Amino acid sequence: MENFTFYSPTCFVFGKDTESRAGGLVKRFGGTKALIHYGGGSALRSGLIGRVTASLEKEGVPYVLLGGVKPNPRSGLVYEGIGLCRREKIDFILAVGGGSVIDSAKAIAAGTVYDGDFWDFYSGKPIENALPVGTVLTIAAAGSEGSPDSVITKEEGMFKRGASGDAIRPRFSILNPALTQTLPPYQTAAGITDIMAHLYERYLTNTKEVEVTDRLIEALLLTMIHEGPRVIANPNNYDARANIMWAGMMAHNNSCGVGRSQDWNSHNIEHELSALYDCAHGAGLAVTMPAVFAYVMEHDVMRFAQAAVRVWGCQMDFAHPENTARAGIEALRSFLTSIGMPRNFAELGAREEDIPALVEALCRGDGRQGSISGFVTLNEEDCANIYRMMV
Amino acid sequence: MENFTFYSPTCFVFGKDTESRAGGLVKRFGGTKALIHYGGGSALRSGLIGRVTASLEKEGVPYVLLGGVKPNPRSGLVYEGIGLCRREKIDFILAVGGGSVIDSAKAIAAGTVYDGDFWDFYSGKPIENALPVGTVLTIAAAGSEGSPDSVITKEEGMFKRGASGDAIRPRFSILNPALTQTLPPYQTAAGITDIMAHLYERYLTNTKEVEVTDRLIEALLLTMIHEGPRVIANPNNYDARANIMWAGMMAHNNSCGVGRSQDWNSHNIEHELSALYDCAHGAGLAVTMPAVFAYVMEHDVMRFAQAAVRVWGCQMDFAHPENTARAGIEALRSFLTSIGMPRNFAELGAREEDIPALVEALCRGDGRQGSISGFVTLNEEDCANIYRMMV
Repeated sequence: MENFTFYSPTCFVFGKDTESRAGGLVKRFGGTKALIHYGGGSALRSGLIGRVTASLEKEGVPYVLLGGVKPNPRSGLVYEGIGLCRREKIDFILAVGGGSVIDSAKAIAAGTVYDGDFWDFYSGKPIENALPVGTVLTIAAAGSEGSPDSVITKEEGMFKRGASGDAIRPRFSILNPALTQTLPPYQTAAGITDIMAHLYERYLTNTKEVEVTDRLIEALLLTMIHEGPRVIANPNNYDARANIMWAGMMAHNNSCGVGRSQDWNSHNIEHELSALYDCAHGAGLAVTMPAVFAYVMEHDVMRFAQAAVRVWGCQMDFAHPENTARAGIEALRSFLTSIGMPRNFAELGAREEDIPALVEALCRGDGRQGSISGFVTLNEEDCANIYRMMV
Repeated sequence: MENFTFYSPTCFVFGKDTESRAGGLVKRFGGTKALIHYGGGSALRSGLIGRVTASLEKEGVPYVLLGGVKPNPRSGLVYEGIGLCRREKIDFILAVGGGSVIDSAKAIAAGTVYDGDFWDFYSGKPIENALPVGTVLTIAAAGSEGSPDSVITKEEGMFKRGASGDAIRPRFSILNPALTQTLPPYQTAAGITDIMAHLYERYLTNTKEVEVTDRLIEALLLTMIHEGPRVIANPNNYDARANIMWAGMMAHNNSCGVGRSQDWNSHNIEHELSALYDCAHGAGLAVTMPAVFAYVMEHDVMRFAQAAVRVWGCQMDFAHPENTARAGIEALRSFLTSIGMPRNFAELGAREEDIPALVEALCRGDGRQGSISGFVTLNEEDCANIYRMMV
């Protein structure tokens, strides 16, 4: 195991009706005037924004509203939010939504207290200061409610890039599984896929002797395999939603990823797809992961065999471990298909002829030198091969 | 799943040589004058205290030393520490040791800023304020490095009681697995047993539909089953020590115990043994757990069968699930014996004739009304039966 620091100071308030505590939590964590950041009209129509604003009013915390965050959140709205926060002297950002809203809120939080262009943070500059952020989560997927990460798409060039820093870890996150019950099956399945990807990206490691984190990752994958089909069959299954929601946080606050190298090649390869086609990130991952895993399997057959046996219940083929490894990848693919995720470029809305442009953006965008690195290093030819496997 | 709040703001610094960061961390978390609290002479002789004090000196943080914490830490030293902190105007408590030292440090931290008798907190009063606490952990066992809990033995009457509060959660905890390599096999095994008990106490729940926390607990138990024998066979196995150390923290910071009722009957029944005989807490648990589990198994046979199959690899007896449940308890008992833990009162140094006194202290001590409650409620007769099963 490698040396590490693990710091997850977010206060998680979990369960039914917990959004009514938003105002008290903003106050407890030092907010005196809040920006409430949200996405489309559904949060307004469902009454959620009304319940949150009522809670702030009850606590005497003034607020300003800024909606309009889209999936794969854009830099334009971040600039708008930064201007608004400065003009209104906002000192707390409350994100009400899923990962896109939270990521946008984190970017605004960092940008508001920074003299330069906030995109600097998405080009490698560490985030050291930010306004405090709180969240009311409505989609179990991105894990942004418990992570120091944010992903934003720059509209000039449609680059999708990430930034990170403890300063943008949420001070509190309100997780009410009932709020996710209205999510359509496709978005629910995309969220499940994203959570599983966060687990696989940590599972694919070159660090030896990491039994405890291997086992924790497997535990969360087993949870998704158990609860995923139950929630697709019955969107109102509160308990299945609750188990998925806590697994989604645990999958990405890094408690099960510490002390080990991680992969993230699948995320990087997918980011170009959702940036170009504006598809759901989880849907893109469903197409990407099986291709990437099959392409890199030879790098460590036993790791994939271990996942196959422990997670997917495959029988170990001791004479031919590669058969077991392959069976595990096929089991993942079948599972994702069974919950309604796309299998290939066509179902995702991607085009084979765009592959050169995808590879160019992936391997040359934002300062990259012709390759991406993770579990293995993939050059432009590798990435093109992987995209072609998805066709 | 039940509603819950989860808050674990401790900064964990994990790995080789990390004790050299103690001074910087005390400063980062606001300490300007520290009490260094430790146990016996081994921390001095090994040079650990010297490395920690050098780190504080380098950062210009003055300190006062208070050693002498014994296993099953006593109230007497807590009173002494409180007096010392007040006289010396200490504003940070740095515990260097295992769970006993950390628990004693937490009691001093809460008692120093409280006008009354610190024992009030161990009689049910919530802890709301305390000096900040940091830890340098030397034994993987109690989980106190990441928990809001403290257990102290009151010398008048030898009552062992717990207190809890977010204010005594460590601000930081330094976990260097190499520091645990000098621990004798018996103490190592007792630590492993304590960690497994923290997991079983959470596993035994009456809450339905808690797959995610079931799976996480099973993951950590599987880790202990894999790493325990490796570290007993080779005490210098750094990686096995590292996996156990992180599992020990995760087992008790409650990330895998949220949203479910918990048991803690085994801990309560054991506490009277270690209070009376001053045996290692983990050794007491090794004798206690199998007896308690066998006694309460009928309350939920399927829960014990699930543990047997998922954790111990037993074959499910679908016609007679109670056989599987029993096989899992026997597998736990065999495992604990295999790592050198005692099996009965005689090996623990306990005496059958003390059972009435043990039951009296357990069920009538400190305001209890003749029973203890957890997974099941156990009255005095039940507790006497369980103690007799251990003979």
